[in-house]
Amino acid sequence: MRIPSVSADGFDRARVVESAEATADLLERSGLEHVRLVRPPGGHPNVIGEWCHAGSAPTVLLYAHHDVQPPGSVGRWHSDPFEPCVRDGRLYGRGSADDKAGAVAHAAAISAWLDTAGTIPCNVRVLIEGEEEIGSPNLAAFLGAHLDELAADVLVLADAGNWAVGTAGLTYSLRGLLGFDVSLRALDGPLHSGMAGGVVPDPALGLARLLDSMVDEDGDVAIDGFADDARPVTAAESARIAALDPAPAALATMLGLRAGVHMTGDPGIPILERLWMRPTLTVIGIDTHPVAGSSNQIVADARARVSMRLAPGQDPRRCWERVQDHVRTHAPWGLEVELTLGESVPGWVCEPEGPAFDAAQRALTAGFGTEPVLMGVGGTIPFVGPFADAFGGIPALLLGPADPASRIHGEDESLHLDDWTSLIASEVHLLEELA
Amino acid sequence: MRIPSVSADGFDRARVVESAEATADLLERSGLEHVRLVRPPGGHPNVIGEWCHAGSAPTVLLYAHHDVQPPGSVGRWHSDPFEPCVRDGRLYGRGSADDKAGAVAHAAAISAWLDTAGTIPCNVRVLIEGEEEIGSPNLAAFLGAHLDELAADVLVLADAGNWAVGTAGLTYSLRGLLGFDVSLRALDGPLHSGMAGGVVPDPALGLARLLDSMVDEDGDVAIDGFADDARPVTAAESARIAALDPAPAALATMLGLRAGVHMTGDPGIPILERLWMRPTLTVIGIDTHPVAGSSNQIVADARARVSMRLAPGQDPRRCWERVQDHVRTHAPWGLEVELTLGESVPGWVCEPEGPAFDAAQRALTAGFGTEPVLMGVGGTIPFVGPFADAFGGIPALLLGPADPASRIHGEDESLHLDDWTSLIASEVHLLEELA
Repeated sequence: MRIPSVSADGFDRARVVESAEATADLLERSGLEHVRLVRPPGGHPNVIGEWCHAGSAPTVLLYAHHDVQPPGSVGRWHSDPFEPCVRDGRLYGRGSADDKAGAVAHAAAISAWLDTAGTIPCNVRVLIEGEEEIGSPNLAAFLGAHLDELAADVLVLADAGNWAVGTAGLTYSLRGLLGFDVSLRALDGPLHSGMAGGVVPDPALGLARLLDSMVDEDGDVAIDGFADDARPVTAAESARIAALDPAPAALATMLGLRAGVHMTGDPGIPILERLWMRPTLTVIGIDTHPVAGSSNQIVADARARVSMRLAPGQDPRRCWERVQDHVRTHAPWGLEVELTLGESVPGWVCEPEGPAFDAAQRALTAGFGTEPVLMGVGGTIPFVGPFADAFGGIPALLLGPADPASRIHGEDESLHLDDWTSLIASEVHLLEELA
Repeated sequence: MRIPSVSADGFDRARVVESAEATADLLERSGLEHVRLVRPPGGHPNVIGEWCHAGSAPTVLLYAHHDVQPPGSVGRWHSDPFEPCVRDGRLYGRGSADDKAGAVAHAAAISAWLDTAGTIPCNVRVLIEGEEEIGSPNLAAFLGAHLDELAADVLVLADAGNWAVGTAGLTYSLRGLLGFDVSLRALDGPLHSGMAGGVVPDPALGLARLLDSMVDEDGDVAIDGFADDARPVTAAESARIAALDPAPAALATMLGLRAGVHMTGDPGIPILERLWMRPTLTVIGIDTHPVAGSSNQIVADARARVSMRLAPGQDPRRCWERVQDHVRTHAPWGLEVELTLGESVPGWVCEPEGPAFDAAQRALTAGFGTEPVLMGVGGTIPFVGPFADAFGGIPALLLGPADPASRIHGEDESLHLDDWTSLIASEVHLLEELA
């Protein structure tokens, strides 16, 4: 954690290499063989290694990543983001929960077996990626080029998290992502709002009108036909969600909603179904004149960046067509439209059933002393789908060291240390349960 | 024009004093007496002077201002904003049309009389203000303190403009202004849009929804009861507007609307009535995360600065109550609202009738060789109402050197030189017509 392995542009790339070297050293000390750095062309180095002396036992591929997010506003951290600091049983610092603890958990589980039993019940391969936080731009090509060295029967991805402190999570669904920019233009340059207001359309107001047309009064996506291809929620999922669904007031407090602020989304749909299984729309950026220094002018143009989450099953290409149709028919007052597609990632979902999931549930129960929660995640992990596909649809077990208080990507990122120990114990069990 | 007398904060105040001194020198050379600088406490200096040897003839107060707007983007000017430059019969530079030409026109008309006839048919007082471009913050107090020295029977305000090149304007109505900031908040800090999207309301989207609720599909103000106190358009005004109303296509070209962009406002209402006599709403600034560097986060809050124009007759205090009611009932999802009142100026309108208006029409017809247009203006000149009121509701004749191509406040501000000559000739006639 003292190595600021920020993979984003504008940060020192040498520190990501230094982090890869420290990761390789960790894996070697755990007893893995053939440990090496492999740098995709133009990318940051991945670290791979293996221990394949379990004969005909299954092969497990353990994934984590050693790169981290930028620290954000350093002044808003309560301790140096790159100097680990323990407070109240949590380890604070950038990368603590996302995802250096995941890489260390893999190494610890391996060395636990090799240091005590001198062997591991199954064959193990490890990939610690160096550019997950920039969207894994080279991962699909890397997997294609190293398929033989990484081939496995089951994937264990330690980049997700626990349901709550003390209770493990096993994630079986992720939402997808559809990002786009939309800009509206009336003029080549601004016009005096007194001289032209009432006749010349205001692009900033038009943008407000267009964005508003994309949601209904509950705040749900109202783009015609948008959610038609969302995978229907199964009876088993409904039952799981019904058992887990939080009380609205408790969730509002946990999320930090100000007093009086309502939750959005159809109140007839359970909260966790809204968060995990329904599309949503967020305006993450707007470019127009800022409030400070504004004069009484109609701006020439205004732009918004929109980030939509897609339900599992939705095809981002189809969703993008629906967005384009909507904008074409709803842009007010004939304003000139420019639409640009940004990130586009499908969601991911699997049936959390079968021998690998059963093994994971037993292992996590043993490690945490309580049964894990089969859960969805409202966020997006772009590499999960391609990763599972690259190996022919083998089971993917998504777990990890974060918990709801970990503030991953935020200031004061932290790791719950007791849960980390439980996760490592679970992985030790898992390598036996999967054998 | 070589003196950058920018009255706005952050510019050299000494240059406004220098401009006042140059103005005083100009007025003295024209033959005015008792010329002096009078600086309001904490403000920029005004220049006053008089010539009161016409016995029982009426007294005319001539107003203009010597301060100017900031130059804006200097790189977008085609010549130095503070180096006068003539191209194609127009004088380019900051302050050319707004309003140094107005001050010079007054001085020129006075010296024309005194240099040739050795007298003026009426008594003349002159006030050249030094802080009009920052909203005349000290003008009402200044007028109150100098009422005796400035007392007059008619006001001539040379800070407006002509209907078109070659045709003078005589402005009898102005719209008012109601500015406010509205911000919506859900959270203390941003939240991950994947983890919270679908449940936590997005303040940027909520702001879009709220702003949209303030207008109808024509773009007209849709705040309940907002326009109820607008002064009804008189039959005489309707007739004047019907005779002047431009063809939509011609106006669109003149304003620089991009191809395909519609005009806003009820198409059943004449264009000039929409521009002069109806309220309107413009979003002049938005503060939320900009597009560049945005991450997939729900912002904690979002703010807009709204500038409304008020129809003549509307009471800004009543309008502000309507806005507050609307925001209270339309802010979506229980978002926390903060509303702050900004500029608040009533509109102004008079009946363009009576001896002073008749005199002005004759004078402008003589000066321009064609009848002036009795016109409204969609913009706001805050000092006009208080100015007319300070002198007990005496007639106010609003004319000036600008024309629709003058780009006042913008880059490449310019003055049509032939029309300027016509304006000066008109003022020479006016001092006789008013006697």
